[in-house]
Amino acid sequence: MSRTVSVELGERRYGITIAPGLLDQLGRRLVELTGARRAIVITDSNVSELYGSRALAALSEAGLDRLELCFAAGETHKTLATVSKLLDGVLRHSPAIDRKTVIVALGGGVVGDVAGFVAAVALRGLRVVQVPTSLLACVDSSVGGKTGVDHAAGKNLIGAFHQPRAVLIDVDTLRTLPAAELRNGLPECVKHAVIRDASLLDFIRDHAVDLLAGEDGRLTFDAEVMSELISRNVAIKAAVVAGDEHEVGVRSHLNFGHTIGHAVEATIGYDKLRHGEAVALGMIAANDIAVRRDLLSADAAEAVRSVLGALDLPVRIDGLDLPAIRETMLHDKKADAGRLRFILADSLGHVDIYDDVTDAEITTAVKAISC
Amino acid sequence: MSRTVSVELGERRYGITIAPGLLDQLGRRLVELTGARRAIVITDSNVSELYGSRALAALSEAGLDRLELCFAAGETHKTLATVSKLLDGVLRHSPAIDRKTVIVALGGGVVGDVAGFVAAVALRGLRVVQVPTSLLACVDSSVGGKTGVDHAAGKNLIGAFHQPRAVLIDVDTLRTLPAAELRNGLPECVKHAVIRDASLLDFIRDHAVDLLAGEDGRLTFDAEVMSELISRNVAIKAAVVAGDEHEVGVRSHLNFGHTIGHAVEATIGYDKLRHGEAVALGMIAANDIAVRRDLLSADAAEAVRSVLGALDLPVRIDGLDLPAIRETMLHDKKADAGRLRFILADSLGHVDIYDDVTDAEITTAVKAISC
Repeated sequence: MSRTVSVELGERRYGITIAPGLLDQLGRRLVELTGARRAIVITDSNVSELYGSRALAALSEAGLDRLELCFAAGETHKTLATVSKLLDGVLRHSPAIDRKTVIVALGGGVVGDVAGFVAAVALRGLRVVQVPTSLLACVDSSVGGKTGVDHAAGKNLIGAFHQPRAVLIDVDTLRTLPAAELRNGLPECVKHAVIRDASLLDFIRDHAVDLLAGEDGRLTFDAEVMSELISRNVAIKAAVVAGDEHEVGVRSHLNFGHTIGHAVEATIGYDKLRHGEAVALGMIAANDIAVRRDLLSADAAEAVRSVLGALDLPVRIDGLDLPAIRETMLHDKKADAGRLRFILADSLGHVDIYDDVTDAEITTAVKAISC
Repeated sequence: MSRTVSVELGERRYGITIAPGLLDQLGRRLVELTGARRAIVITDSNVSELYGSRALAALSEAGLDRLELCFAAGETHKTLATVSKLLDGVLRHSPAIDRKTVIVALGGGVVGDVAGFVAAVALRGLRVVQVPTSLLACVDSSVGGKTGVDHAAGKNLIGAFHQPRAVLIDVDTLRTLPAAELRNGLPECVKHAVIRDASLLDFIRDHAVDLLAGEDGRLTFDAEVMSELISRNVAIKAAVVAGDEHEVGVRSHLNFGHTIGHAVEATIGYDKLRHGEAVALGMIAANDIAVRRDLLSADAAEAVRSVLGALDLPVRIDGLDLPAIRETMLHDKKADAGRLRFILADSLGHVDIYDDVTDAEITTAVKAISC
């Protein structure tokens, strides 16, 4: 079964299609969606090895002129230097590319961000189709048009808003993910549940074991369950993005768990803690603040903590450096002219923006996630 | 007297203010326009020496925290490498910049394009105020939101659409331009006349001598005449941009004279021919095609050629390599899936888009501008 979710952005409206086996239909889908005759697949070394030749074969089958550009896998390569090399590949392509050329971002979050940014700035904007192959990319980064790279001064400090023309999610490509990488995407699903849909939390809890099960190095999840999980999540993300494309209002709800989470991630070290783990800790910290304010019931906070625990995600961590975390939070780009904005839940499925969270509350919240 | 022209782009509407002495009011204007408390001036080595300290003093006077970032002057530095270095300066600024920081692009076309692109991608978009100091930048590149840099494969191949929050034009800053550089901006004025307003052609012809007069290395133009010239031109550019921000339709009218002009510039060498000179030749070539098609009267074409001659601009050139020009035109990014689009005039003040111009017509037109 194929599922489709729309991102309603007027002229820039696009669809997210979720189905098993989509990768082998890539060429036909691309032609239908864009009318393109040429495609440039941007991917990383890991994904290229797994799915590069299948993607290229699917493009050739549909009669597309195609090229693959590959960069070394890993967040350390999410830099302007990588973008510069990829642009060399795109712009030196002969015969010269034109504005109808489509970029295909095939891979996880790093690939989507990097390839999306290359598409945003090549000829002042080429069309991009996102083909995410990690759960985090499927439910979060491939939808919404945020693209960009890291800088020595911080993550995602260089980039552009550039909406894709379509998102194509082949759930079968998730089967080759390490379980730890699949787990890395689940906190964003929990986040969506907390900010918009309490029943999604039940769904995640009910299917936690099945989602992460595997044998012989392949995940054995039920394709229908995975498709349902992804479609419910992208529907939430799509609705939030459609309501506030450039993050001047409700889109910041998606930062639930990220204010303290980002700071924890930055101070512990990006190589030592996965983004999803940091967000899990950040959500627990945010709920601690909300419970102490009598905004949120202790039972609701416990329900979130218990699902995260069931997913084998950290709910406490060793070695947090409070002064460093507070310093990092102040430097975070989401600090709006010196004010820190927190997203706090008042019930499961509903959040609001608060800019009056005190140092004392942050201190207590960080203690709540410290061993 | 101060003149103001609006660029009507809905939420992204902005004003262009033209007056003598504006540079010394930069800080106050910036605060009024943006509410900013911090500004980063991006400029080049030439302009920094002439106007850098006055700009910084004006920002300080208004209580703004400010910083200057300077790069080596010249089109050869309009590269992604320069952007990368400037981003280092912006992002390593301490205390960390936030989204309310404003970039001030102080300089000619290269500075406006580079600084505008830095603003477009730093934190996925900072506000930019354009303060153009060359005639070409005043009447053309500072208005309309096209930003970007060159690549080995061609000019302006990397960039973004990023509208400024305001354009502030201090006509007095044009007095330090070499006459040849002022002359470089006048073909774009002639272009605006041909595509939208025949009476502007008369204005340019009537004031040609005065505009270019100078003594002791300073241009002596009448500030009112220069302000009127600039405001009439930006009014035309603003109206075209407001009608088609992303160049899917009428904005391509601004490419009048540029189809052959770009190719002439690229084949002769950017160091040997100024952009304005190439556009002058391109307009004569385009009019040659229009006259031979009986679209345009020979008298109208002669009126354009005669104004360009009066401005001491080339109307013929030695050493044109026809096969190279045709090859370059095919590689031009404006080639839309292999088709070349020409803007041709059918009367002074009115143009249309043609995609049926033949090789034979191009050959004849190139001969018309060859010595």
